[in-house]
Amino acid sequence: MREKKSKPLILITNDDGISAPGIRKLIRIMKDLGDVVVVAPDSPQSGKGHAITIDATLYVRKIQGMGDGVSEYECSGTPADCVKLGIKEVLKRKPDLCVSGINHGSNASINVIYSGTMSAAIEAGIEGVPSIGFSLLDYDWEANFEGLESYVKKIARNVLDNGLPDGIVLNVNFPKITDIPYNGMKIVRQARANWNEKFDKRTNPMGKEYYWLTGEFENLDGGEDTDEFVLAENYVSVVPVQFDLTAHHFLQTLKSWEL
Amino acid sequence: MREKKSKPLILITNDDGISAPGIRKLIRIMKDLGDVVVVAPDSPQSGKGHAITIDATLYVRKIQGMGDGVSEYECSGTPADCVKLGIKEVLKRKPDLCVSGINHGSNASINVIYSGTMSAAIEAGIEGVPSIGFSLLDYDWEANFEGLESYVKKIARNVLDNGLPDGIVLNVNFPKITDIPYNGMKIVRQARANWNEKFDKRTNPMGKEYYWLTGEFENLDGGEDTDEFVLAENYVSVVPVQFDLTAHHFLQTLKSWEL
Repeated sequence: MREKKSKPLILITNDDGISAPGIRKLIRIMKDLGDVVVVAPDSPQSGKGHAITIDATLYVRKIQGMGDGVSEYECSGTPADCVKLGIKEVLKRKPDLCVSGINHGSNASINVIYSGTMSAAIEAGIEGVPSIGFSLLDYDWEANFEGLESYVKKIARNVLDNGLPDGIVLNVNFPKITDIPYNGMKIVRQARANWNEKFDKRTNPMGKEYYWLTGEFENLDGGEDTDEFVLAENYVSVVPVQFDLTAHHFLQTLKSWEL
Repeated sequence: MREKKSKPLILITNDDGISAPGIRKLIRIMKDLGDVVVVAPDSPQSGKGHAITIDATLYVRKIQGMGDGVSEYECSGTPADCVKLGIKEVLKRKPDLCVSGINHGSNASINVIYSGTMSAAIEAGIEGVPSIGFSLLDYDWEANFEGLESYVKKIARNVLDNGLPDGIVLNVNFPKITDIPYNGMKIVRQARANWNEKFDKRTNPMGKEYYWLTGEFENLDGGEDTDEFVLAENYVSVVPVQFDLTAHHFLQTLKSWEL
């Protein structure tokens, strides 16, 4: 175990790419809490889910960094690849904490399933590293991140102090920042939601039809204890996320089937 | 609701690509149960997790098929894209069942997280379609699929008859086929496991270092009620999988933190 007095080692990654304003903000916040090493994708990886690169080569390159005075590596792979390479090849040991983000856009409710940000956090959790994904409900590249610093620090300090149980990571979402400060933070569950896809069908210059995936978000959950509900009320949402996907409550019913 | 007497509409996809022997086998099995439409990736998508294509174009092309006498479409996207496009653009309605696979390789235990096969099944579940992912513990392209037909049919018939609760899909894994018939089928939970990555570091002809991701599977779970355990005992494993990732059992503890 690391001695209490030594600075914790913190691995930072994201899915928007190493140059995204969200990860730069997270780096500057986390520098106050420990020794920071960044291993992040060299290009945007949004929507990559828990993809890993098994049929192609992976590059990792130490870069100059962007003036934040921390060690930085860019990687050709997915967010999950970054965590694997970060732990095994760059750090060569488990960090005390892994933080992913700050994502430009929501990872609340069903978005957690598609999220590269959360997949990086989950990958760290699988490897036994306490881990948090942070996301801001603002898809703008020039999003305003001023106002969430104290929440990020409080959550990260708590995880450094308390650890997290095996198999659990945290999914933290911040409402879009406005003139009105957040109302506080709420521990909630993932809302049942869905994207109602609309495919935008077009014809390319060669006459071939193609599609763009777009969609409308549908919150199917009437509960007031969900991430979607509290985010709409201007609270920061914290959902404990597990990667044991077993629907334990359905095991008994399934055993009664004639299989 | 569809009338009981009409044939069910079954959407088939996979992650190994539309020409993989595993999906061809699944098509031939499912033809006995209903009207089959195939929408599958035009190239292998293993390890793609729940990736979706949001920053690139998507192509879907009706193809001649491969002699199995069903409607077939190949798609340039991921397994999850195939399901979205299959429901919204190809079928233009929800099918009665979605089946994904048969994957060449295990999607038991932690593999479910990285699996394109299971992500397709989960995507269908998110859209409210009863759904099953099938995988064979044999990574060989020329894997032997003879011997699992009756299990696939029994499970699919049960899902068609009983439906599945909202938010739950099935993850079915088959032991590698040998001369010894399967011992039967067991309803189990996902084993706690991890891939202990080993990065194979090489130098390319231009002198630049790169990596291949490889690893050794570690079953960290001593339980006898897990997929890994029963698969090793030559049973077919069935795990009900949910996409509500909330660690409900940790909510109360987390609320006691000083957040």
